Amino acid sequence: MAARAVATERPKTRMRILAACRRLFNERGPAAVTTAEIAASVGINEGNLYYHFQRKEQIVEALFAEFEHGFRDVAAAYSPGADDPRHYRDYFAGWFNLMWEWRFFYRDGAAVDRMAPRLRRHLKALADDGQAQVRRVLHGMAAAALIRASPQEIEMLVVNGWIIATYWIDYLRSRHGIAAIRREHIDWGAAQAMGLFLPYLTPRGRAVVELARSATA
Amino acid sequence: MAARAVATERPKTRMRILAACRRLFNERGPAAVTTAEIAASVGINEGNLYYHFQRKEQIVEALFAEFEHGFRDVAAAYSPGADDPRHYRDYFAGWFNLMWEWRFFYRDGAAVDRMAPRLRRHLKALADDGQAQVRRVLHGMAAAALIRASPQEIEMLVVNGWIIATYWIDYLRSRHGIAAIRREHIDWGAAQAMGLFLPYLTPRGRAVVELARSATA
Repeated sequence: MAARAVATERPKTRMRILAACRRLFNERGPAAVTTAEIAASVGINEGNLYYHFQRKEQIVEALFAEFEHGFRDVAAAYSPGADDPRHYRDYFAGWFNLMWEWRFFYRDGAAVDRMAPRLRRHLKALADDGQAQVRRVLHGMAAAALIRASPQEIEMLVVNGWIIATYWIDYLRSRHGIAAIRREHIDWGAAQAMGLFLPYLTPRGRAVVELARSATA
Repeated sequence: MAARAVATERPKTRMRILAACRRLFNERGPAAVTTAEIAASVGINEGNLYYHFQRKEQIVEALFAEFEHGFRDVAAAYSPGADDPRHYRDYFAGWFNLMWEWRFFYRDGAAVDRMAPRLRRHLKALADDGQAQVRRVLHGMAAAALIRASPQEIEMLVVNGWIIATYWIDYLRSRHGIAAIRREHIDWGAAQAMGLFLPYLTPRGRAVVELARSATA
């Protein structure tokens, strides 16, 4: 009986550690958080933390696996052929919610890279898939007459959209000294990314933006 | 005579050190270059290098002062009220040439920040001036009927243009593993930044882009 209790308790502790780390890393960045703080935040001792994760790198890798899972869920939420503006509004909101939930990966990319270099190829594969997906969605929006854009314009939008979505958090830090990202900043980032697409929207397509604005207002 | 020879020789050595460092830093980043390599590249011994610069931080600060000078020259090249498309073509080409000449500041911003934290407030002042200048130029282009954009659209363009211009080098590195920036990459970055403005150009304004394309073709 005792052995069974331990066996079910361990995965729970692991989940609690990861949840605490996501919160702490989002607040202060993975480089600034010590293993002592992690253990204290979970209410376990450092030996117990060490039992689950021998190095902080392993925590970052485990969190990245969760992030990857969320990323693929958001990408998969697109329905090919959809022409309801609400579908696109929800789809883009999904990306920005993901960024909010995992903001340390966006804000502290260089620190994550130094700490867990093995993630590099996972990150590349994820970005490949993500860009391919955004490309599909934009072609879908063109087919549904929500945007009017040539294939070359769509390529430019995929890359510029990716650069804005990846770096707006670092822009706020380096340009305005904003280190703690709040919900209002996410809305600001979403509006900047949306700005790229505004001139390509058809009158029907503007409904996507109007819906997004009324949702956050 | 000997004292005079030394007195005129010293500023020249200092300039040669800075020129060598700019080249080495552009090639490999300031963190990867050792003081031994710098001395060898200039053809002096490390004691002589130490006479001019006691720490690498001081070299980075001296190079930043040169960059700042170049930045203000590029910004000042705008003629308020200009309506010749060639003027705007040259003006934007000036910014991208500056990025090419000082690409390590754009590519290795995080390393520079760790190495020379005192530059932070200079960088902020420079970015404030740079954005104000781009804003003035875009209002100038609107007044000259080269673009058609509302003040809100101009604000969005200033920020998105800044994010693209600041981070496209890091995007090429993190996304495509491109660490050595070549001229062709500069053209790529310029085309991506230009892409932001395309939908706002009037038929007259398109001449700016046509001129830029024929200049790099």
